[in-house]
Amino acid sequence: MTTSDEVMRRCAELDRFSARATGLERVYLSAEHRAANEAVAGWMRDAGLTTWVDAAGNQYGRMEGREPGLPALLLGSHLDTVPDAGSYDGMLGVVMAVAVARRLHEDDVALPFALEVVGFSDEEGTRFGKALLGSSAAAGLWDDAWWSVRDARGVTLRQAFVDFGLDPDRVGEAARRPEELVGYLEAHIEQGPYLEAADASLGVVSSIAGARRFTLSVIGEARHAGGTPYERRKDALVGASEAISLIERLARASVCVATVGQISVAPGGVNVVPGQADFSLDLRAERDVDRDVLWDRYVTEIGALCAARGLRFCWHETHSAPAMPCASWLREAVVEGIAVTGDHAPMELWSRAGHDGMAVGHVTDIGMLFLRCFDGISHHPAESVREVDVARGLDAFEAAVLAVAARIDARRVEVVV
Amino acid sequence: MTTSDEVMRRCAELDRFSARATGLERVYLSAEHRAANEAVAGWMRDAGLTTWVDAAGNQYGRMEGREPGLPALLLGSHLDTVPDAGSYDGMLGVVMAVAVARRLHEDDVALPFALEVVGFSDEEGTRFGKALLGSSAAAGLWDDAWWSVRDARGVTLRQAFVDFGLDPDRVGEAARRPEELVGYLEAHIEQGPYLEAADASLGVVSSIAGARRFTLSVIGEARHAGGTPYERRKDALVGASEAISLIERLARASVCVATVGQISVAPGGVNVVPGQADFSLDLRAERDVDRDVLWDRYVTEIGALCAARGLRFCWHETHSAPAMPCASWLREAVVEGIAVTGDHAPMELWSRAGHDGMAVGHVTDIGMLFLRCFDGISHHPAESVREVDVARGLDAFEAAVLAVAARIDARRVEVVV
Repeated sequence: MTTSDEVMRRCAELDRFSARATGLERVYLSAEHRAANEAVAGWMRDAGLTTWVDAAGNQYGRMEGREPGLPALLLGSHLDTVPDAGSYDGMLGVVMAVAVARRLHEDDVALPFALEVVGFSDEEGTRFGKALLGSSAAAGLWDDAWWSVRDARGVTLRQAFVDFGLDPDRVGEAARRPEELVGYLEAHIEQGPYLEAADASLGVVSSIAGARRFTLSVIGEARHAGGTPYERRKDALVGASEAISLIERLARASVCVATVGQISVAPGGVNVVPGQADFSLDLRAERDVDRDVLWDRYVTEIGALCAARGLRFCWHETHSAPAMPCASWLREAVVEGIAVTGDHAPMELWSRAGHDGMAVGHVTDIGMLFLRCFDGISHHPAESVREVDVARGLDAFEAAVLAVAARIDARRVEVVV
Repeated sequence: MTTSDEVMRRCAELDRFSARATGLERVYLSAEHRAANEAVAGWMRDAGLTTWVDAAGNQYGRMEGREPGLPALLLGSHLDTVPDAGSYDGMLGVVMAVAVARRLHEDDVALPFALEVVGFSDEEGTRFGKALLGSSAAAGLWDDAWWSVRDARGVTLRQAFVDFGLDPDRVGEAARRPEELVGYLEAHIEQGPYLEAADASLGVVSSIAGARRFTLSVIGEARHAGGTPYERRKDALVGASEAISLIERLARASVCVATVGQISVAPGGVNVVPGQADFSLDLRAERDVDRDVLWDRYVTEIGALCAARGLRFCWHETHSAPAMPCASWLREAVVEGIAVTGDHAPMELWSRAGHDGMAVGHVTDIGMLFLRCFDGISHHPAESVREVDVARGLDAFEAAVLAVAARIDARRVEVVV
């Protein structure tokens, strides 16, 4: 039986496939990508899976179910990383999926579906600035406009495909059809502090948040800081400051998370009242409707506070992705899986970060299992997961697959009856 | 009698001495500086004054009083400009001083002091980034450390002196001794909107504010915008926003003016909670004590609001200049001067901007007359003054000189009695 210490060891082994001498960086269609695929393919074959790389560089392995050619339950995550990454974001989910497949293979379990494991090739978007390329290809969401996107050295995505040995014209072959899939399950570190705060090893994900991002501008009048009394000022930065305080206050009182991460003012003289302030807003929620309602309220209330100061307020949206809910039947299967670790009322939480499921959800139902991580730290070398949580995670993930099998069997019985 | 339209015409004539093909820029020790000095010297001689350029490039003219060699009442302002300047900031005060001298000369008034007019050579600091160089030389405040300061083309102040035909080693000769001066009177556009709002042509200045400037830093923790819940955030920008709102609120309720003109955050990612926010503060008041009390309160209250959010707060002072009060007897003389225009209770206001009097005040008493300007606009080509206000200003300035004369005479009578 595959043990948690083997999972930890394999995550550490994948650290070797890095573009950096010290630290981890592994991007789409790189030599490191190929090496990681090959290492994972070896573990897949060792687990009894048949392996292949699809037309978008995703690493697959498959084990047939009770009979050949059944639709597949897909398990996996991604093998690419951010710059100076930790060892678990993505990789842990792939390595755990391989381990669960091996356990089921060794136990000779006859499943009512094929079991596939996937290591997606690009989730982070580090190389081309477009996230979810690997899983978008698998979900049939590929956009030909992406071919001309260039990396930092000027290489187009199309050229990178060719250099990697892939045929750009065949990327459509990576697309999975709904009828060949039962669903998608992913294990991932939480990348947040909620499980740790609740002293829980595992949690079930309700939804993957989609972010909306905006640039907000407050426009006043640049004037001399000495000569201009308050009643004559239209200070864009004071208006923006009130807006930033309001953004936090309303978000705290809501089910959303809002962050202002960038700000600049013009003209920017130490003795000049700011005439314009531009700032970013990143807005997330479990459900799009909550996020959109809060945004509408921001527009109204920031508009009002600006008007009260004689300031103009305008904005434009720079990014929008819808939330992807996890299917209730797969959430239930994950909850059943966690139950075998002794936790019969696991924490349910929504993912504030994006995941491959956002793309895969377009072609099949998705479910996610979160593992506790240290201090919510991710996208950082200090990313850390405890082996005890991995051990529980393996048991839960395996049990979740069996819970999915039970549900598939039940459906068939219903159909038969 | 010199009329207001001649003053307006002369201000326009000085516009020709500019380093820019379109727009006005005239900096210290430039060819335009020399040309403006020569034009003003011609007007001075035309007004009956004896002229010279001092060891720091300041243009002087002198008319003796009842007897030769009496201490002088100094009238004037500056002839240098900011980049893309208006036509009145500085120049109006010099041209008006020449006009007043000419009136008194033509009327053959026998004054109990010599009358000197000065066009200071550097008030704005445009070329070398050090303001008040001309009046500092006149006040005996020259600092030899300034010699090595360079302009944008790398020319040192010392070299610029030599190129202009001045001897750096003799700059000390520009220093005036207290016993050779009766006082200093300057007419200047307000550069603020108070007189216009009060529908008044003229005002008497109580004090020239000195600014203190600081850089404030709020330090929190950079974290992922998705994964980090509010209770775990130490958002430096939200803390800074509260501080900026507080700065305005407390300043509005005080006699001070506070401005935050610059802000930056790090790391500055759209999806990263800001770990640090740095912003500037420019703080002015009529009296240094009010300004310093408010600053102390800022330190306490910003420190407290940061502490409440788990943020650190630190700051350093980047600039400090003390306020320079106008002498009460010269304020009274200016009020008496304004009275001849029919305004017997003129507005008293403090100058939020700096002036040559900040330096001259170190060697003799100072007084200032403000003229209304359009919409408070200054340091801008749209700077504008109405001829009717200049006409009233000339009458008031002349009467103020006579009021000073009456006071000097009264002192002598007291001494004699």
